[in-house]
Amino acid sequence: MRIAVDAMGGDYAPEVAVAGAVLAQPDCPADIVLIGPENEIRSILDTRNPPSRLQVCHAQDFIGMDEAGPVAIRKKKDASISVAMRLLAAGEVDAVVSAGNSAAIVAAARHYVGLVHGLRRPALAVVLPMPQGSVLLADVGAHAEAVTEHLVQSAALVHAYLKTVTGVESPRLGMLNIGKERVKGTESTRRAYSLLERSRLNFVGNLEPHELFTGQADAVVCDGFVGNIVLKLHECWVGVWRRLLAKQQPLPGSADTAQGDLNPGAGRLESRWNCQDIGGAPLLGARKTVVVAHGCSRESAIANAVHVAVTALETGSIERVVNYLDTTPILSELKLYSARWVLDHWKNRWGGHKKPS
Amino acid sequence: MRIAVDAMGGDYAPEVAVAGAVLAQPDCPADIVLIGPENEIRSILDTRNPPSRLQVCHAQDFIGMDEAGPVAIRKKKDASISVAMRLLAAGEVDAVVSAGNSAAIVAAARHYVGLVHGLRRPALAVVLPMPQGSVLLADVGAHAEAVTEHLVQSAALVHAYLKTVTGVESPRLGMLNIGKERVKGTESTRRAYSLLERSRLNFVGNLEPHELFTGQADAVVCDGFVGNIVLKLHECWVGVWRRLLAKQQPLPGSADTAQGDLNPGAGRLESRWNCQDIGGAPLLGARKTVVVAHGCSRESAIANAVHVAVTALETGSIERVVNYLDTTPILSELKLYSARWVLDHWKNRWGGHKKPS
Repeated sequence: MRIAVDAMGGDYAPEVAVAGAVLAQPDCPADIVLIGPENEIRSILDTRNPPSRLQVCHAQDFIGMDEAGPVAIRKKKDASISVAMRLLAAGEVDAVVSAGNSAAIVAAARHYVGLVHGLRRPALAVVLPMPQGSVLLADVGAHAEAVTEHLVQSAALVHAYLKTVTGVESPRLGMLNIGKERVKGTESTRRAYSLLERSRLNFVGNLEPHELFTGQADAVVCDGFVGNIVLKLHECWVGVWRRLLAKQQPLPGSADTAQGDLNPGAGRLESRWNCQDIGGAPLLGARKTVVVAHGCSRESAIANAVHVAVTALETGSIERVVNYLDTTPILSELKLYSARWVLDHWKNRWGGHKKPS
Repeated sequence: MRIAVDAMGGDYAPEVAVAGAVLAQPDCPADIVLIGPENEIRSILDTRNPPSRLQVCHAQDFIGMDEAGPVAIRKKKDASISVAMRLLAAGEVDAVVSAGNSAAIVAAARHYVGLVHGLRRPALAVVLPMPQGSVLLADVGAHAEAVTEHLVQSAALVHAYLKTVTGVESPRLGMLNIGKERVKGTESTRRAYSLLERSRLNFVGNLEPHELFTGQADAVVCDGFVGNIVLKLHECWVGVWRRLLAKQQPLPGSADTAQGDLNPGAGRLESRWNCQDIGGAPLLGARKTVVVAHGCSRESAIANAVHVAVTALETGSIERVVNYLDTTPILSELKLYSARWVLDHWKNRWGGHKKPS
């Protein structure tokens, strides 16, 4: 088992990505390959007493966080993320981990590794810990914008993931929206509602934000912009709340309550919700294991993202999702419903019939 | 001073809206007029010992939460919200409060009351309490979708509000986005970034969700879908956090920690963040005072929304925003920048010049 880590990905690359790989290697059953400018990586490694299994693969170029991802992937064939994805496609590594420009990671995965047959684009899915169990949220940022087809395909992806990996027979899927009613939200969410309702997926309807916490659904879909905002709010709020609470009511005998441990339970919760401890999210829909970490990842987050990749490889989760979608007609059915909806829509528009629901 | 309350607005209408008006009237310097089916309202009032100043104005029809707002406003001329807005336009009441279908409220305000000259559409703005002061967030749900022009006009609205009402000389405006970099987000946010940067507004750039809490901006703009999600998460999270914390670490000597008051500070915070206590948000850009409350408002929320309207009338905040925007060329300047951007864009597209930033 070999895992490629994009040494040039993230706000603090290459130092932090390299340090993360050094941190991860001892407990990691896989060999880690750092991808990036060899001299630079070696000089960082020299200061850190690297494990002997850690390898380096040279890549001249890199893609910055402020570049337009898909354009950069077309232009920079020797960027670290492109090299990593080529190794993955060739089977020389089994997974790629990157905290780089997520649009570029997604574009590279699509271009070099490929997607499930019939899928328009992949989605990033994360498990959010909740008072009642947990909820899988997708997309959390693979793409900022989503039309109807992307939303319903994300639903198919999380369905496949929950069914094959967690073994839930008929996972309950919701759509994050600003109201329960089917007319609420954007045109994309309204159309997606109609399509999901007709599909074989167990669609429980629109969920408002507070319903994320009530255990009404096993997974929730939304566009990548909204999902990313929800994820990031989710990650920061425990820390913010602790600071707020500390301000409101200083603990007796504590000199610095804002810094002090207000409550041992709060510390445990904070780590459960913290992006540095969660690590990264697998890219659902790609044909091989790609784990995307936050741009702001510190070395522990990179190390945890490597562990996410190891778990995905050990459980074969990405392979299972790909097999499931390749062998069930779920994506093609959704396309059929979509085509029917468009036909109905135009027939009613020009024929004066009842508007399709 | 007279305030119309839409008796048929909200998930629990008419009972809760009527009860809210009864609750609000004693402390309220304005006379409250309940708009809705007279018989139904009178029969609810009969059970409640209503204050004598409370009036009723008959409206036959109403618009449900599951109707498409703008369509319903065109069709139902006698819906309670339409009647209320006509009274407001005619000067027979000074403000309208409704917890009804927000798309319908916005459409009615626009149709009967009118908008600031040059404004494409209004925005709902709420003040979110934060560890460092507070931040004004707009739009939180007047419209679910937003193109570039709507985003920059929302920025002009919150600028006008902060400048004229809170007296901040040059309010710092941010845009909620999934990354700091200008290329991040949707096409609308990328274009809005370019326009806001060139404008006379004090634009501080993109803000990620956790930066809402750091006091980097006085106001933050986003589309109504995202704003509504952020607002609703914001409102529910203190309660969720308390439940989580209670689960993690039972308080010694407390039989039912999930219900018990874990921390007196938490209770105070929860009420500061709770939608029932915040009441409602003023519709910025409408020419008169319109306050929109959550659909899930209980009677205390309706009463608090009436107080929001009273405060707005007493401080003349909506009037000041309208005057400011009518007398400064801020909206027309933004239109000019937008037109220039489009011209540049097409010139570069066809002329092969450098892409506009």
